[in-house]
Amino acid sequence: MSGLFITFEGPEGAGKSTNLQFFAAALREAGCDPLLTREPGGTPIAEKIRGVLLSHHDEVMCSDAELLLMFAARAQHLDRLIRPALEQGQVVISDRFTDATYAYQGGGRGIATQRIAALEDWVQGSLRPDLTIVFDVPVEIGMRRARARSELDRFEVEQTAFFESVRQTYLDRAAADPGRYRVIDSSGTLDDVAEAMRPLIAQVLERWHV
Amino acid sequence: MSGLFITFEGPEGAGKSTNLQFFAAALREAGCDPLLTREPGGTPIAEKIRGVLLSHHDEVMCSDAELLLMFAARAQHLDRLIRPALEQGQVVISDRFTDATYAYQGGGRGIATQRIAALEDWVQGSLRPDLTIVFDVPVEIGMRRARARSELDRFEVEQTAFFESVRQTYLDRAAADPGRYRVIDSSGTLDDVAEAMRPLIAQVLERWHV
Repeated sequence: MSGLFITFEGPEGAGKSTNLQFFAAALREAGCDPLLTREPGGTPIAEKIRGVLLSHHDEVMCSDAELLLMFAARAQHLDRLIRPALEQGQVVISDRFTDATYAYQGGGRGIATQRIAALEDWVQGSLRPDLTIVFDVPVEIGMRRARARSELDRFEVEQTAFFESVRQTYLDRAAADPGRYRVIDSSGTLDDVAEAMRPLIAQVLERWHV
Repeated sequence: MSGLFITFEGPEGAGKSTNLQFFAAALREAGCDPLLTREPGGTPIAEKIRGVLLSHHDEVMCSDAELLLMFAARAQHLDRLIRPALEQGQVVISDRFTDATYAYQGGGRGIATQRIAALEDWVQGSLRPDLTIVFDVPVEIGMRRARARSELDRFEVEQTAFFESVRQTYLDRAAADPGRYRVIDSSGTLDDVAEAMRPLIAQVLERWHV
Protein backbone atom coordinates (compact mmCIF):
# COMPACT_ATOMS: atom_id res chain seq x y z
CA MET A 1 0.00 0.00 0.00
CA SER A 2 1.38 3.42 -0.85
CA GLY A 3 0.18 6.70 0.56
CA LEU A 4 -0.80 9.97 -1.03
CA PHE A 5 1.57 12.89 -1.48
CA ILE A 6 -0.04 16.35 -1.54
CA THR A 7 1.83 19.65 -1.85
CA PHE A 8 0.62 23.17 -1.10
CA GLU A 9 2.20 25.88 -3.21
CA GLY A 10 1.89 29.58 -3.81
CA PRO A 11 3.69 32.88 -3.40
CA GLU A 12 4.09 34.81 -0.13
CA GLY A 13 0.83 35.74 1.54
CA ALA A 14 -1.27 33.26 -0.45
CA GLY A 15 -2.43 31.72 2.82
CA LYS A 16 -0.85 28.29 2.23
CA SER A 17 -0.15 27.54 5.88
CA THR A 18 -3.61 28.53 7.16
CA ASN A 19 -5.29 26.62 4.34
CA LEU A 20 -3.11 23.60 5.07
CA GLN A 21 -4.31 23.54 8.67
CA PHE A 22 -7.93 23.72 7.52
CA PHE A 23 -7.38 20.96 4.94
CA ALA A 24 -5.70 18.71 7.51
CA ALA A 25 -8.45 19.31 10.10
CA ALA A 26 -11.08 18.27 7.55
CA LEU A 27 -9.17 15.07 6.80
CA ARG A 28 -8.83 14.32 10.52
CA GLU A 29 -12.57 14.76 11.03
CA ALA A 30 -13.05 12.03 8.44
CA GLY A 31 -10.62 9.74 10.29
CA CYS A 32 -7.57 10.32 8.10
CA ASP A 33 -4.54 11.59 10.03
CA PRO A 34 -2.14 13.23 7.57
CA LEU A 35 1.56 13.87 8.16
CA LEU A 36 2.15 17.62 7.87
CA THR A 37 5.57 18.88 6.87
CA ARG A 38 7.25 21.75 5.05
CA GLU A 39 10.08 22.71 2.74
CA PRO A 40 12.78 23.67 2.93
CA GLY A 41 12.96 21.63 6.13
CA GLY A 42 10.93 18.82 7.65
CA THR A 43 13.77 16.96 9.44
CA PRO A 44 16.39 18.21 11.92
CA ILE A 45 19.17 18.40 9.29
CA ALA A 46 16.87 19.83 6.60
CA GLU A 47 15.71 22.50 9.06
CA LYS A 48 19.35 23.49 9.62
CA ILE A 49 19.73 23.87 5.86
CA ARG A 50 16.52 25.94 5.89
CA GLY A 51 18.23 28.23 8.39
CA VAL A 52 21.11 28.81 5.97
CA LEU A 53 18.71 29.37 3.06
CA LEU A 54 16.35 31.83 4.75
CA SER A 55 18.72 33.90 6.91
CA HIS A 56 20.29 37.11 5.79
CA HIS A 57 24.07 36.84 5.27
CA ASP A 58 27.01 39.22 4.93
CA GLU A 59 27.58 37.95 1.40
CA VAL A 60 25.33 37.28 -1.59
CA MET A 61 24.37 33.61 -1.99
CA CYS A 62 25.00 32.55 -5.59
CA SER A 63 22.02 30.97 -7.30
CA ASP A 64 23.70 27.57 -7.83
CA ALA A 65 24.47 27.32 -4.11
CA GLU A 66 20.86 28.23 -3.32
CA LEU A 67 19.53 25.59 -5.72
CA LEU A 68 21.86 22.87 -4.41
CA LEU A 69 20.95 23.69 -0.80
CA MET A 70 17.26 23.36 -1.67
CA PHE A 71 17.84 19.91 -3.14
CA ALA A 72 20.16 18.87 -0.31
CA ALA A 73 17.36 19.63 2.16
CA ARG A 74 14.88 17.85 -0.13
CA ALA A 75 17.05 14.72 -0.40
CA GLN A 76 17.17 14.50 3.39
CA HIS A 77 13.43 15.22 3.73
CA LEU A 78 12.56 12.50 1.20
CA ASP A 79 14.95 9.95 2.69
CA ARG A 80 14.05 10.39 6.34
CA LEU A 81 10.41 11.52 6.32
CA ILE A 82 8.41 11.56 3.07
CA ARG A 83 9.33 8.19 1.52
CA PRO A 84 9.01 6.20 4.78
CA ALA A 85 5.59 7.79 5.47
CA LEU A 86 4.31 7.11 1.93
CA GLU A 87 5.54 3.53 2.16
CA GLN A 88 3.45 3.13 5.30
CA GLY A 89 0.40 4.35 3.38
CA GLN A 90 0.17 7.78 5.01
CA VAL A 91 -1.24 10.94 3.48
CA VAL A 92 1.66 13.42 3.46
CA ILE A 93 0.99 17.13 3.02
CA SER A 94 3.99 19.38 2.46
CA ASP A 95 3.91 23.16 2.65
CA ARG A 96 5.98 23.70 -0.54
CA PHE A 97 8.00 21.19 -2.54
CA THR A 98 9.80 21.13 -5.89
CA ASP A 99 7.30 23.41 -7.65
CA ALA A 100 8.56 26.14 -5.32
CA THR A 101 12.08 25.53 -6.64
CA TYR A 102 10.84 25.97 -10.22
CA ALA A 103 8.98 29.12 -9.16
CA TYR A 104 11.61 30.80 -6.94
CA GLN A 105 14.97 29.58 -8.23
CA GLY A 106 13.74 29.13 -11.82
CA GLY A 107 11.20 31.91 -12.35
CA GLY A 108 12.53 34.25 -9.67
CA ARG A 109 16.31 33.80 -9.98
CA GLY A 110 16.35 32.81 -13.63
CA ILE A 111 18.05 29.41 -13.28
CA ALA A 112 17.41 27.29 -16.39
CA THR A 113 14.48 24.87 -16.05
CA GLN A 114 16.59 21.96 -17.34
CA ARG A 115 19.07 22.48 -14.49
CA ILE A 116 16.25 22.17 -11.97
CA ALA A 117 14.68 19.22 -13.81
CA ALA A 118 18.02 17.37 -13.78
CA LEU A 119 18.31 17.72 -10.00
CA GLU A 120 14.63 16.80 -9.57
CA ASP A 121 15.16 13.51 -11.42
CA TRP A 122 18.43 12.95 -9.61
CA VAL A 123 17.04 13.42 -6.08
CA GLN A 124 13.44 12.26 -6.49
CA GLY A 125 13.71 9.52 -9.10
CA SER A 126 10.13 9.12 -10.36
CA LEU A 127 8.48 10.47 -7.19
CA ARG A 128 6.12 13.39 -7.88
CA PRO A 129 3.21 14.73 -5.78
CA ASP A 130 -0.16 13.11 -6.45
CA LEU A 131 -1.89 16.45 -6.02
CA THR A 132 -0.49 19.99 -5.95
CA ILE A 133 -2.73 22.86 -4.88
CA VAL A 134 -1.52 26.27 -6.03
CA PHE A 135 -2.94 29.12 -4.00
CA ASP A 136 -2.95 32.10 -6.29
CA VAL A 137 -3.04 35.72 -5.22
CA PRO A 138 -2.03 38.95 -6.97
CA VAL A 139 1.51 39.90 -5.94
CA GLU A 140 0.46 43.18 -4.37
CA ILE A 141 -2.07 41.55 -2.04
CA GLY A 142 0.29 38.69 -1.16
CA MET A 143 3.16 41.03 -0.32
CA ARG A 144 0.91 43.24 1.81
CA ARG A 145 -0.16 40.16 3.82
CA ALA A 146 3.44 38.89 4.16
CA ARG A 147 4.73 42.26 5.35
CA ALA A 148 1.98 42.53 7.95
CA ARG A 149 2.86 39.09 9.29
CA SER A 150 6.46 39.22 10.47
CA GLU A 151 10.01 40.15 9.66
CA LEU A 152 10.83 39.33 6.05
CA ASP A 153 13.26 36.49 5.25
CA ARG A 154 15.93 36.42 2.50
CA PHE A 155 13.30 35.65 -0.17
CA GLU A 156 10.53 37.90 1.06
CA VAL A 157 12.67 41.02 0.64
CA GLU A 158 12.80 40.50 -3.14
CA GLN A 159 11.14 42.98 -5.49
CA THR A 160 7.78 42.88 -7.29
CA ALA A 161 9.21 41.61 -10.61
CA PHE A 162 10.68 38.59 -8.77
CA PHE A 163 7.28 37.69 -7.30
CA GLU A 164 5.43 38.28 -10.58
CA SER A 165 7.74 35.73 -12.11
CA VAL A 166 7.24 33.31 -9.19
CA ARG A 167 3.46 33.59 -9.59
CA GLN A 168 3.56 33.16 -13.36
CA THR A 169 5.76 30.07 -13.08
CA TYR A 170 3.26 28.46 -10.71
CA LEU A 171 0.36 29.26 -13.07
CA ASP A 172 2.26 27.98 -16.12
CA ARG A 173 3.17 24.72 -14.42
CA ALA A 174 -0.42 24.23 -13.26
CA ALA A 175 -1.78 24.92 -16.76
CA ALA A 176 0.65 22.40 -18.28
CA ASP A 177 -0.49 19.51 -16.06
CA PRO A 178 -4.15 19.94 -15.05
CA GLY A 179 -4.27 16.31 -13.90
CA ARG A 180 -1.96 17.01 -10.99
CA TYR A 181 -2.52 20.70 -10.21
CA ARG A 182 -5.48 22.63 -8.88
CA VAL A 183 -5.32 26.42 -8.73
CA ILE A 184 -7.35 28.12 -6.00
CA ASP A 185 -7.89 31.87 -6.02
CA SER A 186 -6.94 32.96 -2.53
CA SER A 187 -7.42 36.69 -2.87
CA GLY A 188 -10.85 36.39 -1.18
CA THR A 189 -11.81 35.42 2.36
CA LEU A 190 -10.65 32.28 4.16
CA ASP A 191 -14.24 30.99 3.90
CA ASP A 192 -14.16 31.33 0.10
CA VAL A 193 -10.89 29.40 -0.02
CA ALA A 194 -12.20 26.74 2.37
CA GLU A 195 -15.24 26.29 0.11
CA ALA A 196 -12.98 25.89 -2.92
CA MET A 197 -10.95 23.21 -1.09
CA ARG A 198 -14.01 21.06 -0.18
CA PRO A 199 -14.15 19.03 -3.42
CA LEU A 200 -10.39 18.40 -3.19
CA ILE A 201 -10.73 17.16 0.39
CA ALA A 202 -13.48 14.81 -0.77
CA GLN A 203 -11.26 13.54 -3.60
CA VAL A 204 -8.35 12.89 -1.25
CA LEU A 205 -10.58 10.95 1.16
CA GLU A 206 -11.96 8.90 -1.71
CA ARG A 207 -8.46 7.96 -2.95
CA TRP A 208 -7.31 7.33 0.60
CA HIS A 209 -10.14 4.88 1.28
CA VAL A 210 -9.37 2.84 -1.85
CA MET B 1 46.28 36.77 -16.93
CA SER B 2 44.86 33.88 -14.99
CA GLY B 3 46.18 32.57 -11.71
CA LEU B 4 47.15 29.12 -10.54
CA PHE B 5 44.83 26.80 -8.65
CA ILE B 6 46.51 24.30 -6.32
CA THR B 7 44.71 21.81 -4.09
CA PHE B 8 46.03 19.85 -1.11
CA GLU B 9 44.39 16.49 -0.57
CA GLY B 10 44.76 13.45 1.61
CA PRO B 11 43.04 11.47 4.35
CA GLU B 12 42.86 12.46 8.02
CA GLY B 13 46.22 12.92 9.68
CA ALA B 14 48.15 13.20 6.42
CA GLY B 15 49.45 16.58 7.54
CA LYS B 16 47.78 18.60 4.79
CA SER B 17 47.27 21.75 6.82
CA THR B 18 50.82 21.89 8.24
CA ASN B 19 52.30 21.18 4.83
CA LEU B 20 50.10 23.84 3.29
CA GLN B 21 51.48 26.44 5.70
CA PHE B 22 55.04 25.40 4.84
CA PHE B 23 54.30 25.52 1.10
CA ALA B 24 52.69 28.97 1.39
CA ALA B 25 55.59 30.32 3.46
CA ALA B 26 58.07 29.17 0.82
CA LEU B 27 56.05 30.94 -1.89
CA ARG B 28 55.91 34.11 0.19
CA GLU B 29 59.67 34.09 0.67
CA ALA B 30 59.94 34.14 -3.10
CA GLY B 31 57.57 37.13 -3.32
CA CYS B 32 54.41 35.23 -4.27
CA ASP B 33 51.52 35.79 -1.85
CA PRO B 34 49.03 32.94 -2.27
CA LEU B 35 45.38 33.00 -1.21
CA LEU B 36 44.86 30.17 1.30
CA THR B 37 41.41 28.66 1.66
CA ARG B 38 39.71 25.39 2.52
CA GLU B 39 36.79 23.12 1.73
CA PRO B 40 34.09 22.68 2.69
CA GLY B 41 34.06 26.38 3.48
CA GLY B 42 36.10 29.39 2.44
CA THR B 43 33.33 32.02 2.52
CA PRO B 44 30.86 32.97 5.28
CA ILE B 45 27.95 31.02 3.72
CA ALA B 46 30.14 28.06 2.73
CA GLU B 47 31.49 27.91 6.31
CA LYS B 48 27.90 27.70 7.59
CA ILE B 49 27.33 24.77 5.25
CA ARG B 50 30.58 23.25 6.57
CA GLY B 51 29.06 23.48 10.04
CA VAL B 52 26.06 21.41 8.94
CA LEU B 53 28.32 18.90 7.16
CA LEU B 54 30.81 18.31 9.97
CA SER B 55 28.62 18.46 13.08
CA HIS B 56 27.06 15.46 14.68
CA HIS B 57 23.26 15.35 14.31
CA ASP B 58 20.35 13.51 15.92
CA GLU B 59 19.57 11.89 12.57
CA VAL B 60 21.64 10.18 9.89
CA MET B 61 22.51 12.44 6.95
CA CYS B 62 21.67 10.62 3.71
CA SER B 63 24.50 10.44 1.22
CA ASP B 64 22.72 12.50 -1.48
CA ALA B 65 22.15 15.34 0.98
CA GLU B 66 25.81 15.19 2.00
CA LEU B 67 26.95 15.29 -1.62
CA LEU B 68 24.64 18.19 -2.53
CA LEU B 69 25.75 20.17 0.53
CA MET B 70 29.39 19.69 -0.50
CA PHE B 71 28.66 21.08 -3.96
CA ALA B 72 26.46 23.89 -2.60
CA ALA B 73 29.40 25.04 -0.48
CA ARG B 74 31.72 24.60 -3.47
CA ALA B 75 29.47 26.65 -5.78
CA GLN B 76 29.56 29.51 -3.30
CA HIS B 77 33.31 29.15 -2.73
CA LEU B 78 34.00 29.24 -6.48
CA ASP B 79 31.66 32.14 -7.13
CA ARG B 80 32.74 34.42 -4.31
CA LEU B 81 36.39 33.53 -3.72
CA ILE B 82 38.22 31.14 -6.05
CA ARG B 83 37.15 32.42 -9.50
CA PRO B 84 37.60 36.13 -8.67
CA ALA B 85 41.08 35.43 -7.22
CA LEU B 86 42.16 33.35 -10.23
CA GLU B 87 40.86 36.06 -12.58
CA GLN B 88 43.11 38.51 -10.76
CA GLY B 89 46.08 36.23 -11.39
CA GLN B 90 46.46 34.98 -7.82
CA VAL B 91 47.86 31.66 -6.72
CA VAL B 92 45.01 29.98 -4.81
CA ILE B 93 45.75 27.03 -2.53
CA SER B 94 42.76 25.13 -1.15
CA ASP B 95 42.94 22.61 1.69
CA ARG B 96 40.71 20.01 -0.05
CA PHE B 97 38.54 20.39 -3.15
CA THR B 98 36.56 18.08 -5.44
CA ASP B 99 39.02 15.18 -5.17
CA ALA B 100 37.93 14.95 -1.54
CA THR B 101 34.34 14.51 -2.71
CA TYR B 102 35.40 11.62 -4.96
CA ALA B 103 37.39 10.14 -2.07
CA TYR B 104 34.91 10.60 0.81
CA GLN B 105 31.45 10.60 -0.79
CA GLY B 106 32.50 8.34 -3.68
CA GLY B 107 35.06 5.96 -2.20
CA GLY B 108 33.92 6.26 1.40
CA ARG B 109 30.12 6.44 1.07
CA GLY B 110 29.86 4.52 -2.19
CA ILE B 111 28.12 7.21 -4.28
CA ALA B 112 28.56 6.45 -7.99
CA THR B 113 31.45 8.31 -9.63
CA GLN B 114 29.19 9.49 -12.49
CA ARG B 115 26.88 11.23 -10.01
CA ILE B 116 29.83 13.17 -8.61
CA ALA B 117 31.24 13.88 -12.08
CA ALA B 118 27.86 15.27 -13.20
CA LEU B 119 27.77 17.73 -10.30
CA GLU B 120 31.45 18.60 -10.84
CA ASP B 121 30.75 19.61 -14.46
CA TRP B 122 27.56 21.37 -13.41
CA VAL B 123 29.16 23.52 -10.67
CA GLN B 124 32.70 23.97 -11.98
CA GLY B 125 32.24 24.04 -15.75
CA SER B 126 35.73 23.33 -17.09
CA LEU B 127 37.59 24.60 -14.01
CA ARG B 128 39.97 22.00 -12.53
CA PRO B 129 43.01 22.49 -10.27
CA ASP B 130 46.31 23.07 -12.07
CA LEU B 131 48.12 20.99 -9.47
CA THR B 132 46.80 18.59 -6.83
CA ILE B 133 49.17 17.30 -4.15
CA VAL B 134 47.96 14.12 -2.48
CA PHE B 135 49.56 13.53 0.91
CA ASP B 136 49.50 9.81 1.43
CA VAL B 137 49.71 8.03 4.74
CA PRO B 138 48.69 4.53 5.87
CA VAL B 139 45.23 4.69 7.45
CA GLU B 140 46.42 3.50 10.83
CA ILE B 141 49.04 6.23 11.18
CA GLY B 142 46.68 8.92 9.88
CA MET B 143 43.92 7.94 12.29
CA ARG B 144 46.31 7.86 15.23
CA ARG B 145 47.42 11.42 14.41
CA ALA B 146 43.83 12.65 13.90
CA ARG B 147 42.69 11.14 17.20
CA ALA B 148 45.57 12.74 19.08
CA ARG B 149 44.72 16.14 17.63
CA SER B 150 41.18 16.99 18.71
CA GLU B 151 37.60 15.83 18.99
CA LEU B 152 36.57 13.84 15.92
CA ASP B 153 34.05 15.34 13.47
CA ARG B 154 31.24 13.49 11.64
CA PHE B 155 33.69 12.07 9.08
CA GLU B 156 36.58 11.31 11.41
CA VAL B 157 34.50 8.86 13.46
CA GLU B 158 34.13 6.52 10.45
CA GLN B 159 35.73 3.08 10.48
CA THR B 160 38.98 1.79 8.97
CA ALA B 161 37.31 0.36 5.82
CA PHE B 162 35.90 3.82 5.03
CA PHE B 163 39.36 5.41 5.23
CA GLU B 164 41.03 2.62 3.28
CA SER B 165 38.59 3.37 0.50
CA VAL B 166 39.22 7.13 0.80
CA ARG B 167 42.96 6.56 0.54
CA GLN B 168 42.65 4.17 -2.41
CA THR B 169 40.42 6.61 -4.32
CA TYR B 170 43.00 9.36 -3.93
CA LEU B 171 45.78 7.04 -5.15
CA ASP B 172 43.69 5.80 -8.11
CA ARG B 173 42.81 9.33 -9.20
CA ALA B 174 46.45 10.42 -8.93
CA ALA B 175 47.62 7.41 -10.94
CA ALA B 176 45.07 8.15 -13.69
CA ASP B 177 46.28 11.73 -14.26
CA PRO B 178 49.97 12.07 -13.44
CA GLY B 179 50.07 15.44 -15.21
CA ARG B 180 47.94 17.06 -12.55
CA TYR B 181 48.62 15.01 -9.41
CA ARG B 182 51.70 14.54 -7.27
CA VAL B 183 51.62 11.99 -4.45
CA ILE B 184 53.84 12.70 -1.45
CA ASP B 185 54.45 10.05 1.18
CA SER B 186 53.72 11.80 4.44
CA SER B 187 54.25 8.93 6.85
CA GLY B 188 57.75 10.26 7.60
CA THR B 189 58.92 13.43 9.34
CA LEU B 190 57.78 16.95 8.42
CA ASP B 191 61.32 17.58 7.11
CA ASP B 192 61.03 14.65 4.72
CA VAL B 193 57.72 15.99 3.43
CA ALA B 194 59.10 19.52 3.14
CA GLU B 195 61.98 18.14 1.09
CA ALA B 196 59.56 16.33 -1.19
CA MET B 197 57.58 19.56 -1.72
CA ARG B 198 60.63 21.63 -2.77
CA PRO B 199 60.55 20.75 -6.50
CA LEU B 200 56.78 21.46 -6.57
CA ILE B 201 57.31 24.87 -4.96
CA ALA B 202 59.94 25.62 -7.60
CA GLN B 203 57.54 24.56 -10.36
CA VAL B 204 54.75 26.75 -9.03
CA LEU B 205 57.06 29.76 -8.83
CA GLU B 206 58.23 29.12 -12.38
CA ARG B 207 54.66 28.96 -13.72
CA TRP B 208 53.68 31.98 -11.64
CA HIS B 209 56.50 34.10 -13.08
CA VAL B 210 55.49 33.33 -16.68
